[in-house]
Amino acid sequence: MNRPNNVEVVFTPEMYPNFENEEANVVIIDILRATSAICTAFENGVDEMIPVPSIEKARKRKEEGYIVAAERDGNVLDFADFGNSPFNFTEDRVKGKQIAYSTTNGTRAIHTAKGSNMVIIASFINLSAVVNLLAKENRDVIILCAGWKGKFCLEDTLCAGAIAEQLLASGSFNTICDSAKASVDLWKLAQPNLLKYVDKVAQRERLQRLGLDDVIEYCHTPDSSDKIPVYKNDRLIEISNL
Amino acid sequence: MNRPNNVEVVFTPEMYPNFENEEANVVIIDILRATSAICTAFENGVDEMIPVPSIEKARKRKEEGYIVAAERDGNVLDFADFGNSPFNFTEDRVKGKQIAYSTTNGTRAIHTAKGSNMVIIASFINLSAVVNLLAKENRDVIILCAGWKGKFCLEDTLCAGAIAEQLLASGSFNTICDSAKASVDLWKLAQPNLLKYVDKVAQRERLQRLGLDDVIEYCHTPDSSDKIPVYKNDRLIEISNL
Repeated sequence: MNRPNNVEVVFTPEMYPNFENEEANVVIIDILRATSAICTAFENGVDEMIPVPSIEKARKRKEEGYIVAAERDGNVLDFADFGNSPFNFTEDRVKGKQIAYSTTNGTRAIHTAKGSNMVIIASFINLSAVVNLLAKENRDVIILCAGWKGKFCLEDTLCAGAIAEQLLASGSFNTICDSAKASVDLWKLAQPNLLKYVDKVAQRERLQRLGLDDVIEYCHTPDSSDKIPVYKNDRLIEISNL
Repeated sequence: MNRPNNVEVVFTPEMYPNFENEEANVVIIDILRATSAICTAFENGVDEMIPVPSIEKARKRKEEGYIVAAERDGNVLDFADFGNSPFNFTEDRVKGKQIAYSTTNGTRAIHTAKGSNMVIIASFINLSAVVNLLAKENRDVIILCAGWKGKFCLEDTLCAGAIAEQLLASGSFNTICDSAKASVDLWKLAQPNLLKYVDKVAQRERLQRLGLDDVIEYCHTPDSSDKIPVYKNDRLIEISNL
């Protein structure tokens, strides 16, 4: 019998070097709101998305003719077409298009993981699709939470726990990672009334101050999409186009 | 009415720069085993302890005539008098003595926090004494977990949660920190059967492989001491000697 694959959870991109494993599939989570927005865009038929780390590069993409979705700390950048709410990525805006996309924390997490076997974009929105892929892949898994400016975020951790719980329950995965175990326990605690639990997360308060908290329920509702965005050659594409 | 003080939890020393607050009291936690050992030494009458970050500096202290307690990854350094198990710091060995002390993670956490108002050494062993001090001090509190080589450790987080829960319950503290909220929730989950819960932590497994897990129950038993070690002028002393 083969050894079970390892599943680990990393709470911030800054902690990733302590976990790095070139053979692993890395799952990126930024529930409020980057990976929820990316999953929505692919559900609505976007052709590809280019994660852009800096404001300067986002501006350059705009000059090149790309649609640009970009904000910093919840504020849409002046040259961008729209901001990072999942509700912006409607079918009429994104279907068949190429979009350059830049956010505070999510883009950084994606770039951090690019040395791994495969970089997968996950959210509650495509939860089951991602779990099924990971189970089929038969490789070690690192779940990388985007966090917030180097800090731990509860909502990312809950989604990490939801994925880790299902992988561990399959019997093909194991963990000795305390952050994976904590994530699973927090997920089990939150799951019976997820929206009530996330009422206390700091990022919800930040979005509420900016009037951007209309996405909370949508971003915590599982399985509205079976599309899986992956990062390849500096672009996000749907996994069936790999 | 004054604003409530802020309580935050930091999961690793590497994350501390995102939280730094010169006005705060910083509580250092390394349950398995550094801060449990330090609290034991002060309970047994040690005069002062010098946290030493490097092996070279520990060797130098030995040459200067200090008693040296030092290990790396659970192995006692060849020139040291003994290792880092709390059970080494018996009254006959430590009473009235000066001890140089170096560990894998704990010493680094202590040095990380030295720009703050006061650096306090906490463990389950002196839990209530530390909570009472923090409540009396009426300042912001940062609870800094030592972690393990840059990774999150559950047992440190549980003790952080136990402290944060009591401070928040007092009504004089508030938090918007997701890691504080997660720590409190994990503590509430673990508390009813703490020893059973910590059976799953990675550090217990590491210590067990080295035959060093005899300290688990002792290190998770609250309030066997009311001594509070604090870090001042590069030394740990008992707070009543400040």
